[in-house]
Amino acid sequence: MEMEGVENGWQKKWQFRGNEELNTASISVRGALTMLMKNLRNPAGDDQRPTIMLGRGDPTEFRSFWTTPAAVDAVADALHSFKFNSYCPTGGVIPARRYVLSVLARPGANILLPRPGYPQYEARAAFDHLEVRHFDLLPEKGWEVDLDSVESLADHNTAAMVIINPSNPCGNVFTSQHLKKIAETANKLGIFVISDEVYGHLAFGSNPFVPMGKFSSIVPVITLGSVSKAWIVPGWKLGWIVKNDPNGIFEKTGIVETLNNYLDITTDPATFIQGAIPQMFERTKDVFFSNIIGLLREAADLLYEMVKEIPCLTCPNKPQGSMVVLVKLNLSSLEDIDDDIQFCLKLAKEESVIVLPVLEDGFKRIKAFHQRHAKKL
Amino acid sequence: MEMEGVENGWQKKWQFRGNEELNTASISVRGALTMLMKNLRNPAGDDQRPTIMLGRGDPTEFRSFWTTPAAVDAVADALHSFKFNSYCPTGGVIPARRYVLSVLARPGANILLPRPGYPQYEARAAFDHLEVRHFDLLPEKGWEVDLDSVESLADHNTAAMVIINPSNPCGNVFTSQHLKKIAETANKLGIFVISDEVYGHLAFGSNPFVPMGKFSSIVPVITLGSVSKAWIVPGWKLGWIVKNDPNGIFEKTGIVETLNNYLDITTDPATFIQGAIPQMFERTKDVFFSNIIGLLREAADLLYEMVKEIPCLTCPNKPQGSMVVLVKLNLSSLEDIDDDIQFCLKLAKEESVIVLPVLEDGFKRIKAFHQRHAKKL
Repeated sequence: MEMEGVENGWQKKWQFRGNEELNTASISVRGALTMLMKNLRNPAGDDQRPTIMLGRGDPTEFRSFWTTPAAVDAVADALHSFKFNSYCPTGGVIPARRYVLSVLARPGANILLPRPGYPQYEARAAFDHLEVRHFDLLPEKGWEVDLDSVESLADHNTAAMVIINPSNPCGNVFTSQHLKKIAETANKLGIFVISDEVYGHLAFGSNPFVPMGKFSSIVPVITLGSVSKAWIVPGWKLGWIVKNDPNGIFEKTGIVETLNNYLDITTDPATFIQGAIPQMFERTKDVFFSNIIGLLREAADLLYEMVKEIPCLTCPNKPQGSMVVLVKLNLSSLEDIDDDIQFCLKLAKEESVIVLPVLEDGFKRIKAFHQRHAKKL
Repeated sequence: MEMEGVENGWQKKWQFRGNEELNTASISVRGALTMLMKNLRNPAGDDQRPTIMLGRGDPTEFRSFWTTPAAVDAVADALHSFKFNSYCPTGGVIPARRYVLSVLARPGANILLPRPGYPQYEARAAFDHLEVRHFDLLPEKGWEVDLDSVESLADHNTAAMVIINPSNPCGNVFTSQHLKKIAETANKLGIFVISDEVYGHLAFGSNPFVPMGKFSSIVPVITLGSVSKAWIVPGWKLGWIVKNDPNGIFEKTGIVETLNNYLDITTDPATFIQGAIPQMFERTKDVFFSNIIGLLREAADLLYEMVKEIPCLTCPNKPQGSMVVLVKLNLSSLEDIDDDIQFCLKLAKEESVIVLPVLEDGFKRIKAFHQRHAKKL
């Protein structure tokens, strides 16, 4: 009785509650991964195979994808110098992607995001009460932006459009001609372009990587970059925001001031990692990047071929960049799976596959999974 | 003419604007420091003396305050292991102070903050649209919490109260008895306690440091900690949130779920710094901390004596902990200075003093500054 009283009494006694808005805002990659990890088969169960994590662009556990010792040495040197243990000045570099949206979140404002896109943008926009409108990427045109849909979505409250190049999750790389058309469309609409180039230079197909900043005389551009992908060190949490704005539009519209003010109340990357940047950039040899790009090209080719052997999956375009591949799930060929979430949950449970690195074995398990759930024709 | 047209045309052409809410939210220490730095005398002017930064708890530029090599070696070992370059799992440790408030920011909610306090809380609360109510710290009682004012401020929308112990900016350390009274008051009101113990263990006066978690059977407590101060490495950006909640109240009220979801969309500290923690904790010798505490005690004593020599400043209580001292500015003894902001701006301009480390010279300059502006009696 005493216990029951205690059990029911908390609601009367303690009046604080969590901010439920954050719970709905959190449609992040990490949130989804956490959910899938919880759904893995009980370790005490039959499946003794190691879990295969195909869920995110983080191949750091594989030695062939380890970062260059030049980068590690640069950070160690900065650390041992004792010069970079202090607070860093405002305007130090920051994990950029999460912050830019807050700067735009005026009451009523909206932002145009690509579909398919990277869910971090949606999660952050929801948290910032920034309205999101989605334009399409067209698989039949190699995932180019549907510029007509951009024009039809934008209104006088639209602040910016986001492109991700090389694309996460589509794996394509935009041509220079297409980037110019994007710039011209944004100019016409009076909005600016946020170009997420976190995978910049990780291009291994026929289209070379072209920075959006090349077209900043047509439209002001905010470029987001990071050491995470090019140096394969996502855990270093070091990114940057670059304004490409030869006409000074960001100053005039207050974007620069707001960005600076916001940086005052957000968290910086560790100062000594920032301090390592010059040495890291100077001493990393080209062969490090060419080797990584070669490995990614091989992985993309292998994956593209293996997807062909799994009837419930199709891959409309061979990846040309980034570390991701987008496949289409054909539910109609499966008997007892209703939607993509259920597919992922069952795959985690039955095959211990969370979805890049160990491609071959992971895809074998997905193939076996398909066979078990295939419609008996 | 063309230039003028271009100059005026931007408003019609570009429709995006900065989020002005962020500009008013930013009443941060960093923002104030940036303003004062801008107000320093022109480097081309007469004042050839180096600028004295008395403005924040970051003595890293002085060799006697350098962190222990054991901490640096722990990070370097984690870095060279190549095991901590990946993303870290959700729930990795985070720079805690900035985040806890977002978790509480339900529509209509309010939070009780100490006055005098640490402005980061106000800045973050404003950004999160969380209403702030201030309770007083009483100088005549050694900066203890005015518990009557806490009771009168709280209502059914109050989620929590914040205490900072050792105190920033008052420099006092709460007794165990007083912490117990705080816990009992919060229990009575049905609110929880956020105990900012970033300066935990940096106590050098008569009151030993007691963690608020000791009283978590009376009231649920969230403790914020960091390596920044105890190891003198604020640039490492590594903090933690600890729930002290033997009765499971945070689970029941949804605080834990919201915190986990929020961590999914915020930035983590670099993974390899997190990986260094166990070795750093194990191998740092007690003599490192006792040496730092001795230096802080000496500095506090010196500063307390020197303030006595400057008529426009009084220090109600000798600091007993943290790295800050709070002085009272008596404007009535100054002729041509209207408020504290003007005092700081003129001090920066005339004496190149931004406000801990180089105490003696900094305070000499403040004394000279007082004499110039003193009322001619």
